[in-house]
This record gives sequence, structure tokens and C-alpha cells, in this order.
Amino acid sequence: MNKIPTLDDIRSTHRRIKPFINHTPVLTSGQLNRIYGCNLFFKCENFQKVGAFKFRGATNAVLLLDEEQKKKGVVTHSSGNHAAALSLAAGMSGVRAYIVMPETAPQVKKNAVAGYGAEITFCKPTLEARESACRILMNEKGATLIHPYDNFNVICGQGTAALELLEEVDDLDVVIAPVGGGGLLSGTSCCVKGVNGNITVVGAEPLNANDAWKSFKTGILTPSVNPLTIADGLLTSLSELTFNIISKNVNNIYTVTEESIKVSMKLIWERMKIIVEPSSATVLAAVGENPGSFKGKRVGLIISGGNVDLTRLPF
Amino acid sequence: MNKIPTLDDIRSTHRRIKPFINHTPVLTSGQLNRIYGCNLFFKCENFQKVGAFKFRGATNAVLLLDEEQKKKGVVTHSSGNHAAALSLAAGMSGVRAYIVMPETAPQVKKNAVAGYGAEITFCKPTLEARESACRILMNEKGATLIHPYDNFNVICGQGTAALELLEEVDDLDVVIAPVGGGGLLSGTSCCVKGVNGNITVVGAEPLNANDAWKSFKTGILTPSVNPLTIADGLLTSLSELTFNIISKNVNNIYTVTEESIKVSMKLIWERMKIIVEPSSATVLAAVGENPGSFKGKRVGLIISGGNVDLTRLPF
Repeated sequence: MNKIPTLDDIRSTHRRIKPFINHTPVLTSGQLNRIYGCNLFFKCENFQKVGAFKFRGATNAVLLLDEEQKKKGVVTHSSGNHAAALSLAAGMSGVRAYIVMPETAPQVKKNAVAGYGAEITFCKPTLEARESACRILMNEKGATLIHPYDNFNVICGQGTAALELLEEVDDLDVVIAPVGGGGLLSGTSCCVKGVNGNITVVGAEPLNANDAWKSFKTGILTPSVNPLTIADGLLTSLSELTFNIISKNVNNIYTVTEESIKVSMKLIWERMKIIVEPSSATVLAAVGENPGSFKGKRVGLIISGGNVDLTRLPF
Repeated sequence: MNKIPTLDDIRSTHRRIKPFINHTPVLTSGQLNRIYGCNLFFKCENFQKVGAFKFRGATNAVLLLDEEQKKKGVVTHSSGNHAAALSLAAGMSGVRAYIVMPETAPQVKKNAVAGYGAEITFCKPTLEARESACRILMNEKGATLIHPYDNFNVICGQGTAALELLEEVDDLDVVIAPVGGGGLLSGTSCCVKGVNGNITVVGAEPLNANDAWKSFKTGILTPSVNPLTIADGLLTSLSELTFNIISKNVNNIYTVTEESIKVSMKLIWERMKIIVEPSSATVLAAVGENPGSFKGKRVGLIISGGNVDLTRLPF
């Protein structure tokens, strides 16, 4: 079960999900290039369906269900982008989605998931309550669990964003992706290293949720305990599978401060006129905090999503 | 001097300014199409240099100066996007720009214009003070006045956004542009009607600054008196030249409420993940307030710019 995706896996995934996903643009900004002293290429998954890269992995996982599984539906626990992504992906294939959400989740997220036609089960806001509600649904409905990142098919899907980036931009020196549970960074690294082992792959992680950095540096999987960061998509910790892939494929992980995430997010909004969520801004923050590593280089940045509560901005 | 641009004028303008401007993307949103019941194509001038379409007209005006004029520089009075656009366009051609700004202009705008290398003259915040400061600079420096919209070359430049839109999207039924001083709507209408006289061209204007609507409906040029709208790019009134063009070319002008501008702006931010200024949101507001006129149609919308003070959002 600890199989690592190959470039061929990601290519065939891309062919499979292509009719369902948005081919998102790669944007550049002369102003940001001048500020950072390098050539930045932003792969804009904030323009992906449901506003985040998560739709790629969820779509792949749903399309690879067998007929029996499709009849019985899929289940996950999440209050974030994966819940919306799985709900829409399942709905587009006529598959029922059961989403376990903490009863404390913001109303806007409950509405979004319900709007995609998923069936929501509310639970107490603890990991135990979520997992137990999931197990009940798996037993009662026979639904298949689609984990947000500890899942080979999901990781293959997330890697297709980097595939499109590399098809569009030549001669990249570095590719950076945010790291939370590690699905995006795993898929990205498998794709990039498969295309060209000389391209550096790095992760960007909030200092306040630095489990991937710790695990990467020590070689021992070390989950975060009560992480607290504005990058709400990066609170999760690596799994065995993503840790294994990242250890093999990734050149480095940079931690970034909360202040640096906010400053980078505002810069992207102001100069590029696009809406990105704090988790996405970590990649530019990593460039800003480590200028020596990026000076003069061609840098691909995976912008993971754009789902932000506009009434609660950090600036 | 009341010459009306032809399609050929706009085409040759486009060839002239092409090396200097951004070719901005046309974006679509399945969600917004479903909400509004038509096919919307957003020409995203918020991604233009200086964050607004104004850079097109300013660039054309600067490139068409003769050598003597280039030596003496250009002058305008503006605290908005035209000031930034002219400053950058002049700077890119090695031409000195003199910008008259009210001393009350926000510091961020003063910084932007100064950052593009323009020489700023501050004046009292009245139209008389601005015009008199301009005249002094024209006399003292021999600088050429580049009016933000009452200028043939500027109007030709603004029309090139619609040209790119029509080259990219086939079979549009309607094109909508915001109307303030009327430079964008004039250029848009000359281009669209030149390409295909059957395409409807409409203007979108804040009800609270409805001089174009009044002038259009009565046939008498009627400037606004102390207009007050969140769409700060649309406070100006038509000139003789733009009124003349709009009267001949435009099929209708729709006024939109402040509430409708805010709702449309928020929808664009949330669903499309792009930052647009309130003036830009008037075009979607016009569709929302007049569903019968757009149902089932292919509608091109000129998104005029994305310069917003992120610390003072209307939602």
C-alpha cells in the first residue's frame, strides 16, 4: 500500500480527469519578479473547481471506484476544501457523498458542501468523533473512505497540477508547493522528479505547524500537536505514505512565519489581482524568507486555493 | 477634432501598443453563468499593467507624440488609474510625466505615481485648482496635456481591449463596458460596431453618477453634479467627444444601484477568485438588474480594473 506514484501514473491520471477539471492558468508578475529577484510562475489552482487543487485528487479517486463502490457512495471527514471537492466530484459521477463535519464548522462551508448535493453528518469537533462517524457510515452504507491525502489515487490527482505547469513552462529550476498533510507536495514531487530529476522540489510550511519540517529533518514521522496558523489548509500532519514519498523526493522544506504569510498574501492580492488563501501564500513567503536559494532562478509555485472568508481578512 | 475612431484606427493602435501592454485573459465562470442564465466572458483588464485598462490609452497617446513633444513631456491631472497609467507609459518611453494631484489624494496613490517616476504637483482639491496647475505646467514646461478620455488617441487605445475580446470569443451578442468619462465605452463601441454592427453595445453606470444615462436619454450633454458612488473610477462626466461617439454607437445605458455594485463585486471575488474594483462590478450589476435583456445570450464584459484599498472593503 506504500506504492509511490510514477510519472506514468500521473500522466494517465491527467488523461482520466481532464474532461472534469479546469485547466488552470500559469500567471506571472513583472513587479513580483523585480521584488524577489527571480522569475516566478504561479500555477493558479485558486481557479480550479471548488477553488482548490483538491478537486483533482477527489475526481481521480471517484473515477477509479468500481461499479459496486459507485453504487454505495464515498465518505470522508473534513470541514475544508477536500469536503467540497469530494462532494462535487462524486455528484458529477452520480455517486452519493457522505461528509462528516464538526457541528462547529462555519455555516458557509456547511452550505457549500450541501450545495454540491452531499449528505452531511454532524459530529462533535474532535478527531475521535469524526473518525467514529466515518466508520459508522462505512459500515452502514458500505461507503468507500476517500482520505484527503493518505490515498494513492488522490496523490496522483494532486500531481497533475505540476504536470500542467511543466508542460507550459520550460526550464524551471525549482518547484514549491505548500505542505499540510502532504498530498499536494507528494504528487508534485513525483511528477517533477519524474520529468527531470535535476529540478529542485521544496515544500513550504507554516512554522506554527511544522510537522513536515520536523519529520523531514529528523527522519522520524512527527505529527503536529495543536498547531495554530492562519494557513487553515495546512493544519494536518503527514501520513506514513506522504512522509515516505516526501523523504525520497523532496529536496528541502522551508518553514515560514505567520507575518510572512500575511505579507505575501497581501502582495499577491495587490500586485496580481487574484484571491489566494493563506495556505497558498506560504510558497511566496518561502521565497521571500530565503532569497539566496531562489535568486535569478525560474521558480514554479503551486497556488493551492482561493477560499477565503472575505469578511475576515488578516489585513 | 470630433473625429470618431474607426476599426482600422483601433487595429493600428493595437499593433502599436502591443509590445508594451499585457494581453489580458478572458475568464469565464460556470457558477456565474448558472446564476445569471447567460454565458459571460470577462475581459480582465484588472490584469493590465498598473491594474487598469487606462494603460492602453495612455501608452498610445505617448507613442504618438512627436520627438519635440517627447522631449518636453506630458501632463495630466488625475488621482486615479490614468495618473498611474500615464506615468508608467511615459516612463517606458523615456518621456517625463507631470502629474497634478489633489493634496488630499490617498498616500498609496501618491506613492504609486511617484514610484513610476512621475513628477507630482500637489494642488487644492478643486477642479479649478487642478486645471490651473495643469495650464501652468503646459506653459512652463511645454508639456502636452493627455486628457484621460477627451482624446482621440486615448480612446483608440481603450478600444483595443474589446478588439482582443472579439478576437478570442466568437459570436458575442452583447458587449458591456462601464461608463464614467466615456473613454472606455467610446473605444469599445467603435471597435465592436466596426467588427459587427449587430452586436449590441451597452454601458453600465452607477445610478448615483448617471450623467451618461441622462445625456444619452435626453440627447443633451448633462454633466453630473457632485456624484457620490463607491465606483470611484466613474465619478467623471462625458465630454463632447465621448458623448458624440456614445450617442452614435451605443445601444443602451443601464444604471445600477450601489447595493447591486457591492453584491456583484463580492460575487466576482468569491466565485472567480479575482480582485476587481467597484467600477468593474457595474457591468455584472447591469446584467443582474436586467435579466430579460441578457437571458441565454453570449455577453462580453469589460472588467476595467482591480485597484482597491484592501483595508477598506465594502463587505
